[in-house]
Amino acid sequence: MNIIRVKASKSYNVIIGNALLKDSGKYISEVIKPCRAVIVSDNNVAPLYSQTVKTSLESAGFTSELFVFPHGEQSKSHKVLLELYDFLSEAGVTRSDCLIALGGGVTGDLTGFAAATYLRGIDYVQIPTSLLAQIDSSVGGKTAVDISSGKNLVGAFKQPSLVLADTDTLSTLSDDFFTDGMGEAVKYGMIWSGELFDILSGGNIRNDKARLTDMISRCIDIKREVVENDEFDKGQRMILNFGHTLGHSIEKTQDFSGLSHGKAVAVGMYTMTLAAEKHALITEPISEKLKKCLEANGLPFETDIAPGTLYENSVNDKKRFSDRINIIVCKTIGKAEIINMPLEEYRKLITE
Amino acid sequence: MNIIRVKASKSYNVIIGNALLKDSGKYISEVIKPCRAVIVSDNNVAPLYSQTVKTSLESAGFTSELFVFPHGEQSKSHKVLLELYDFLSEAGVTRSDCLIALGGGVTGDLTGFAAATYLRGIDYVQIPTSLLAQIDSSVGGKTAVDISSGKNLVGAFKQPSLVLADTDTLSTLSDDFFTDGMGEAVKYGMIWSGELFDILSGGNIRNDKARLTDMISRCIDIKREVVENDEFDKGQRMILNFGHTLGHSIEKTQDFSGLSHGKAVAVGMYTMTLAAEKHALITEPISEKLKKCLEANGLPFETDIAPGTLYENSVNDKKRFSDRINIIVCKTIGKAEIINMPLEEYRKLITE
Repeated sequence: MNIIRVKASKSYNVIIGNALLKDSGKYISEVIKPCRAVIVSDNNVAPLYSQTVKTSLESAGFTSELFVFPHGEQSKSHKVLLELYDFLSEAGVTRSDCLIALGGGVTGDLTGFAAATYLRGIDYVQIPTSLLAQIDSSVGGKTAVDISSGKNLVGAFKQPSLVLADTDTLSTLSDDFFTDGMGEAVKYGMIWSGELFDILSGGNIRNDKARLTDMISRCIDIKREVVENDEFDKGQRMILNFGHTLGHSIEKTQDFSGLSHGKAVAVGMYTMTLAAEKHALITEPISEKLKKCLEANGLPFETDIAPGTLYENSVNDKKRFSDRINIIVCKTIGKAEIINMPLEEYRKLITE
Repeated sequence: MNIIRVKASKSYNVIIGNALLKDSGKYISEVIKPCRAVIVSDNNVAPLYSQTVKTSLESAGFTSELFVFPHGEQSKSHKVLLELYDFLSEAGVTRSDCLIALGGGVTGDLTGFAAATYLRGIDYVQIPTSLLAQIDSSVGGKTAVDISSGKNLVGAFKQPSLVLADTDTLSTLSDDFFTDGMGEAVKYGMIWSGELFDILSGGNIRNDKARLTDMISRCIDIKREVVENDEFDKGQRMILNFGHTLGHSIEKTQDFSGLSHGKAVAVGMYTMTLAAEKHALITEPISEKLKKCLEANGLPFETDIAPGTLYENSVNDKKRFSDRINIIVCKTIGKAEIINMPLEEYRKLITE
């Protein structure tokens, strides 16, 4: 079991290990006084794990309730959020009660935002059950819901009181879903740690529990350091978006029903690195190593989307009112840089 | 012109004076770099003042847009909030842009909450145009929207970047609406300042511009001190609720279409003070003075609602899971106290 302490506007522990769910109530009671705890989960995850968490909470002195919503990104909506608010109100949840996000990224984002805003803020705990949520979205306090005009446009910074990353929950993920999370793991290696990158390049992470736990801990520790440096996303935190500008463009081009997020990020990282090499933005040849690492983890690195389309969909953003763009480039493995460049230069980088 | 500096998690000025609107752009540009500023206002206030603010903003270098919603508490809803989010997204509002709340309490609460959550938080300015908003809701950073299960159940603490209380805007208020605000002014005198109470007891505030500005400044300064002591409403800030437990009960009994908020608070203060005297919770006889002060300002002090109903509707709250209640009592004029008592004792206080 590894414990990582995140020192942000609110400090909290991230506990990484196996068999944590059955003791979740005990861990939670160490940071939140027994109260009414509402478990928020989707209809995929709730049947698997909610009873274990509920039982553990109750034996630790909590009263507990369960709110279940339909699985999928379309649930990160105000419709589900308002249902959750009403549920909390009907259940008599007060400011001294808490929410428990049990699930993947959608569950964490939605629950965190509800916790940030219900009664002007109550405590919450993250119990991420997907690889992506364990190594990325459950740590750092970014919460959000989508609105009709776009994803994650509404949200709040709200740090959890505790994060419990139980690696046992990863065993129920499909290979596809697991591989998706690996895209973000490779990102951490690229932007921050050559050592992590080397570990990942060896592949075979999933079936080796010790290596898996070690990898998750390393990723979370990188996230911790970035968040501690820039909790409110004013500068350095932007490097966490390496691969995301093009990755998001791929997702958008495929109408969010093609490559999943982590895989699109994988292609985004490789495409950007290759382009940066070709245009001499980076001098050390690293694209080949990146490609091998992605392949070793079952991740894609190429797309057949035309470069022009890729460019267009990465800049054609309603929020853009500037003729410049920030891109993230790794000049060497383990170190990311933010480069602000004119849009025209960026266009050439991607399309020529 | 008076300037009061509020030192909270974010520090900002409250400027009180006349003819501020026409220079609002200048004042705002001193705290927010010229950007895209979205004025949020209702269809009562927008026709009166939005053009003045817009012109001033633009001459100070801002780009400005106007979002107008229907007047009234029913607009403090997610329906209007989602329309506002979409408007902001369509207008291309970014994290370095800002919102301007131009209007009464509903406008301030709604705009503040949108500012707290759109893109995880952008700056906003309060330009309160009602007496209630000037002396109370625009200062202190409490923002909220209603949900179907109740008022103000969703919100955030988000301090504004600036508050401009232009006393000229009060001249367009109906007598009734002005008097409503005086209920909260008397509250400030009761809980914090015998001097303010004496001024208010003289009546005739509205037509004496100098006394009006002085009164508003005194009220805001009290709010400032309470907020600085307890920004996140964990303890002392509760004294701002003097008269509100019973006041809210009156509003609820009359289905929010009888006495307006400030008037209900007036009756609530008097009823509580009289009861506290009768039950020897306070020894100094102050209810008579309070009654005279309320009368001098055209405020009611009595209700024909049966004490039993008054009690029931003040405790019959879905959020209550305790057999105790906090009540606010002034033992002398100018000093409030929070008393935690068993519900049964509170019942006797109100009904016997």
